[in-house]
Amino acid sequence: MTDQLIAPAGHDGRPRAADTALRRRAAAVIPGGMYGHQAAGPLPPEYPQFLRAGLGARVWDVDGNEYVDLMCSYGPVVLGHRHPAVERAVQAQAELGDCQNGPGPVMVELAELLVGTVRHADWAMFAKNGTDATTMCCTIARARTGRRRILVARGAYHGAAPWCTPRPAGVTREDRANLGYYTYNDLTSVQDAAAEAGDDLAGIVVSPFRHDAGYDQELVDPSFARGLRELCTQAGAALILDDVRCGFRLHLGSSWEPIGVHPDLSAWSKAIANGYPLAAVLGSAPFRDAAASIFVTGSFWFSAVAMAAAVATIGALREENAIEAMAARGTELREGITAQAAGRDLDICYTGPASMPYLSFAGDRNHELASVFAAAAVRAGAYLHPRHNWFVSAAMTGDDIARALEATDQAFAAVRKQAGN
Amino acid sequence: MTDQLIAPAGHDGRPRAADTALRRRAAAVIPGGMYGHQAAGPLPPEYPQFLRAGLGARVWDVDGNEYVDLMCSYGPVVLGHRHPAVERAVQAQAELGDCQNGPGPVMVELAELLVGTVRHADWAMFAKNGTDATTMCCTIARARTGRRRILVARGAYHGAAPWCTPRPAGVTREDRANLGYYTYNDLTSVQDAAAEAGDDLAGIVVSPFRHDAGYDQELVDPSFARGLRELCTQAGAALILDDVRCGFRLHLGSSWEPIGVHPDLSAWSKAIANGYPLAAVLGSAPFRDAAASIFVTGSFWFSAVAMAAAVATIGALREENAIEAMAARGTELREGITAQAAGRDLDICYTGPASMPYLSFAGDRNHELASVFAAAAVRAGAYLHPRHNWFVSAAMTGDDIARALEATDQAFAAVRKQAGN
Repeated sequence: MTDQLIAPAGHDGRPRAADTALRRRAAAVIPGGMYGHQAAGPLPPEYPQFLRAGLGARVWDVDGNEYVDLMCSYGPVVLGHRHPAVERAVQAQAELGDCQNGPGPVMVELAELLVGTVRHADWAMFAKNGTDATTMCCTIARARTGRRRILVARGAYHGAAPWCTPRPAGVTREDRANLGYYTYNDLTSVQDAAAEAGDDLAGIVVSPFRHDAGYDQELVDPSFARGLRELCTQAGAALILDDVRCGFRLHLGSSWEPIGVHPDLSAWSKAIANGYPLAAVLGSAPFRDAAASIFVTGSFWFSAVAMAAAVATIGALREENAIEAMAARGTELREGITAQAAGRDLDICYTGPASMPYLSFAGDRNHELASVFAAAAVRAGAYLHPRHNWFVSAAMTGDDIARALEATDQAFAAVRKQAGN
Repeated sequence: MTDQLIAPAGHDGRPRAADTALRRRAAAVIPGGMYGHQAAGPLPPEYPQFLRAGLGARVWDVDGNEYVDLMCSYGPVVLGHRHPAVERAVQAQAELGDCQNGPGPVMVELAELLVGTVRHADWAMFAKNGTDATTMCCTIARARTGRRRILVARGAYHGAAPWCTPRPAGVTREDRANLGYYTYNDLTSVQDAAAEAGDDLAGIVVSPFRHDAGYDQELVDPSFARGLRELCTQAGAALILDDVRCGFRLHLGSSWEPIGVHPDLSAWSKAIANGYPLAAVLGSAPFRDAAASIFVTGSFWFSAVAMAAAVATIGALREENAIEAMAARGTELREGITAQAAGRDLDICYTGPASMPYLSFAGDRNHELASVFAAAAVRAGAYLHPRHNWFVSAAMTGDDIARALEATDQAFAAVRKQAGN
């Protein structure tokens, strides 16, 4: 029973025996015990590594602890876990077929739905990872222009292939040889990078807003977005919107539809199928032939179930006015959080769209207070993240927000105690 | 009704109105009408582009035509469509959760199962595409060695990322700058390529046998495989087995287990979860730290449903002696096919493992006879491919083989007619 005694305690006071035992087994057969964005190793020890189940805006770890879900599986679960309409569509398609010798009719239905929903889209292609989609955008831009250089913002995350992964292990200098770098919201820095690229500028990749993990978020300056659009048009380069994280969380017509800037190509994944594995590239008519000229594929890219999930997801997002609901719930959360911080006399920075917020503490350079906050929130039953933006799903009820705010109140108390008086 | 009149006729004589209508809609919203390995455009017009359903070894197109399935969705569906044990495992996991804030316990179970099943594997990582897995192998090899050069066989398919896609559109020279090339089964060519790489040799990627699309297949020469193993060991480079297409179709312990050659790293996908989207990298202990050092991830890489499908698939493969069953059915097919060809006095080449055969006709350089054969086979109710190896699933019954052979008999008759007497 030593295992149980040394296991971290769950938020109900029970030790996390099941999670601890699974971590030990994982350490033997998975490098580092876990990898990628869902590795719990870099998180406070209060976090469970393994999750058992989810329903709506609640999730349960393998020791039975329940949490209000403020991460939505790092974005995908936009309508909440096991959304009834999505599950029904999945079930109906699965009873016919999923991975077949060719796509199902639902692929055409989904492509038509996306073209009808996203203003800048005249066509659609599908894949499995957000990285597939961002990489395809770059390849299409290069195929159309016959040029090589792609500009990205310093520190932005566009995936985990060698050309874009944030960690250098195993990456060669050739993998990055055709990248140029600019500073988000700084048009001059883009112009400089474009000038350096000269006649080799194939495209510019940009996120809808600055959401680099570990940093305060920054909404896009509309004049910056318009400047990118003009620069790309004049240079004959592709403006590529990386809407993988934000897509269908801020606006159904693409995250830059509210500011009226239309990219040539956009990359989508995460929320488009409410957690079912799917990615998409959407593009404008002038890029159609280039898109048809590249060879990209995957064994499961034509599978019908995830596409049926996407059709149902987009339908439900519209029917439930989900974008507005997420913004409203996110606003309630923001108001609660900022009031709690003020009440504890804590200087916080709460940035980004209401439905995709990021919390930091003034002067907390190594995220120490953020970690204290997150650990206490997890203990109190809110699953959020110390160094990554949170996600408010459309499944959140007023009760879920109230439950989350009870947890954040305890978390602010822990930070207050840690920071001293 | 013009649409129906011009639609190609299905094998029961009915026009393919539904497929034709879907193709027209797809042409408006999908570049080229379709892309990747499942694009029907390059196939004879008798092929349906869209599939409706599958069960066991039979599939149905959107116009209701039934086919014996000799492509298995280009590999993934190793146990047949909608295998009961796999579907039950999927349903049970789906009722809990799929894409969550962390992996489910099934990830550990699957990693343990793979490590216990595949002899060279001491650890496992999971992804979504075969391309993810082959790319990760290269990245891990580079991370461990601090070197850049990777050798691949000329003409081999290892995925569709810019570094490996068979079509050059949108690919830059830097994407391929760290590749060297050898000829499959020609150890001298490997030694030459390794000498050219010098002290920059990070790894060698090799397929279990030569299965380049459009060419007769070639089984591996065991002395070639042993030579690669020795060369990599001496050079301190990684031997990387690309088992994406063959994995769990030829041997549960990896496709080179029968010849006793153990790679350092292996890439898996397709058949490991009977059509559910999953890929895996397996590796030996010395490569564990390097694997832990790279940053790779994807929004759906930790989803539990596909992992539950993989656990059930591997269990069923073992319980049903599926490898032996596929080899036996494949042998029946080969015997029938070769007898039919001989009976028509047609000179064919039928290559590769019995369960992954490739058929070509002597002197048929542009695959013209192969296309006549495939078109006639499709009309007669066997779904196979004119320029890609076929797949025999474990779901095939004696009746399925008999049905397939009825179709191929008609197909050989068509070839005989085309080739003249």
